[in-house]
Amino acid sequence: MRNINEDTITQAVLASMAGCRDARLREVMTSLVQHVHAFARETKLTEAEWFQGIEFLTRAGHITDDKRQEFILLSDVLGLSMLVTAQNNAKPAGCTEATVFGPFYVDGAPVVDNGADISNGAKGAPCFVSGQVRGIDGKPVPDAALDVWQSDDEGFYDVQKPADGLHEHQARARLYTDAQGRFDFRSILAQHYPIPHDGPVGCMLENLGRHPWRPAHLHFMIQAPGYERLITHVFRDGDKYLDSDAVFGVRSSLIADWKRHDPDARKTGTNEPYYSLQYDFVLNPSKKAA
Amino acid sequence: MRNINEDTITQAVLASMAGCRDARLREVMTSLVQHVHAFARETKLTEAEWFQGIEFLTRAGHITDDKRQEFILLSDVLGLSMLVTAQNNAKPAGCTEATVFGPFYVDGAPVVDNGADISNGAKGAPCFVSGQVRGIDGKPVPDAALDVWQSDDEGFYDVQKPADGLHEHQARARLYTDAQGRFDFRSILAQHYPIPHDGPVGCMLENLGRHPWRPAHLHFMIQAPGYERLITHVFRDGDKYLDSDAVFGVRSSLIADWKRHDPDARKTGTNEPYYSLQYDFVLNPSKKAA
Repeated sequence: MRNINEDTITQAVLASMAGCRDARLREVMTSLVQHVHAFARETKLTEAEWFQGIEFLTRAGHITDDKRQEFILLSDVLGLSMLVTAQNNAKPAGCTEATVFGPFYVDGAPVVDNGADISNGAKGAPCFVSGQVRGIDGKPVPDAALDVWQSDDEGFYDVQKPADGLHEHQARARLYTDAQGRFDFRSILAQHYPIPHDGPVGCMLENLGRHPWRPAHLHFMIQAPGYERLITHVFRDGDKYLDSDAVFGVRSSLIADWKRHDPDARKTGTNEPYYSLQYDFVLNPSKKAA
Repeated sequence: MRNINEDTITQAVLASMAGCRDARLREVMTSLVQHVHAFARETKLTEAEWFQGIEFLTRAGHITDDKRQEFILLSDVLGLSMLVTAQNNAKPAGCTEATVFGPFYVDGAPVVDNGADISNGAKGAPCFVSGQVRGIDGKPVPDAALDVWQSDDEGFYDVQKPADGLHEHQARARLYTDAQGRFDFRSILAQHYPIPHDGPVGCMLENLGRHPWRPAHLHFMIQAPGYERLITHVFRDGDKYLDSDAVFGVRSSLIADWKRHDPDARKTGTNEPYYSLQYDFVLNPSKKAA
């Protein structure tokens, strides 16, 4: 410990954790320290670059609040979120695949009945969404809690809008499947949108020559007793960003056909075309229940 | 890009940076992504652990302000700071070694003359510090700018004290070497102290079974035209934390004897024992000048 240099430092840090009583924490931190050090050695990181890193994290911390989560964005655009999601959600073939959670989920969204309009003032072409939740054995899952959230036609989630009380819980809700495992609701057409890119992560993407866009999608979180929680999206087929999602969340099995229909004022109350999406979800039994 | 899974995600992220025009940024980010992903795979990081990481970074960001830098602390306690310092400050034998910068340097400290008392109200036993700055050729370096900063006898730097205007620029100053490269000033005796441990980094250290203490030291930053900037500490011999510095900054060559002297009220204005430290610094010529 009195002759720390670039060769001995890693072993010194690992030795300092010898008294850690939490074996898992020690395992995780051992790997973290080894990889952080290997990164610095491999790149011959300079002191100026190290300081740029400190400033980046500081800016990310300062822009993060209860409605903006720059560290999740960072994890998303570096593919870490998708990696962690994938390695923790291996499911048997036939189950609906999981994808990234993203930074825009809000706890406590209003509970609505099937058939409700969840847009709550959010703007966009009408879109009717329906489907069934089943187990992998084909049996319907009744009373499954289904959280849904999405952006509006300008690409903003409600939580990105001014906190003036006018945009709360727009295009987000919780509903429950019926006795046949079915759900349906009205919302607005999801559009592709850029992740928030006015902060350090956006600056990083620009410097990397990357765009901030995500293909159009609906977020779903589905929970039912006896089944693993499913966090996923349904993507809109034909979207131009399906092959370059800024957060690497696309899976072929999650791309669906959102059908366009001619105007029907009696059905939608407007004279514009509307859309419909029909998508079924297949849940994996939870390990406890199996 | 439509079939991202835990095996294909790393290549997908690297491919997304193909358009980056900054070759060095791409090199650094390629290594970072590979190591972050390898860390997540190697530890089979769970979603709950990933979220603990997000929360840790968020807390670190929120406690960081213009006087508190939790991300530098984090880098320090994980040994990254010392590693980056070491690999960027290889010097010929005979030169004074560098060590970590730490989070407590303040730009624009008052400039004082040799012989001045820099404590400026900070509490502690009187300590007289003197020495000479030389090049590796033995020649004195006149007019070298010498920044010094340290904690008080309670282990606090001025910037950790209440912002009431009473603690500004205590035990920190800049002075210049004389024609013989000599400097001397009066300050207070440096004591060992804990790094700020009331935040997420302190919590992490506790969970790792590590203490937050640093052995007593004086910080120096020395700059002179024609020489590499030197950022280092002088450590106090005999300190009980020399073998377990929380930030891994100790090097044998930087440990010095701080002599204790019997009280001399005429010299110190007090009836308490005082200390003296004599330490010379040897600078490396800058590459431009060589």
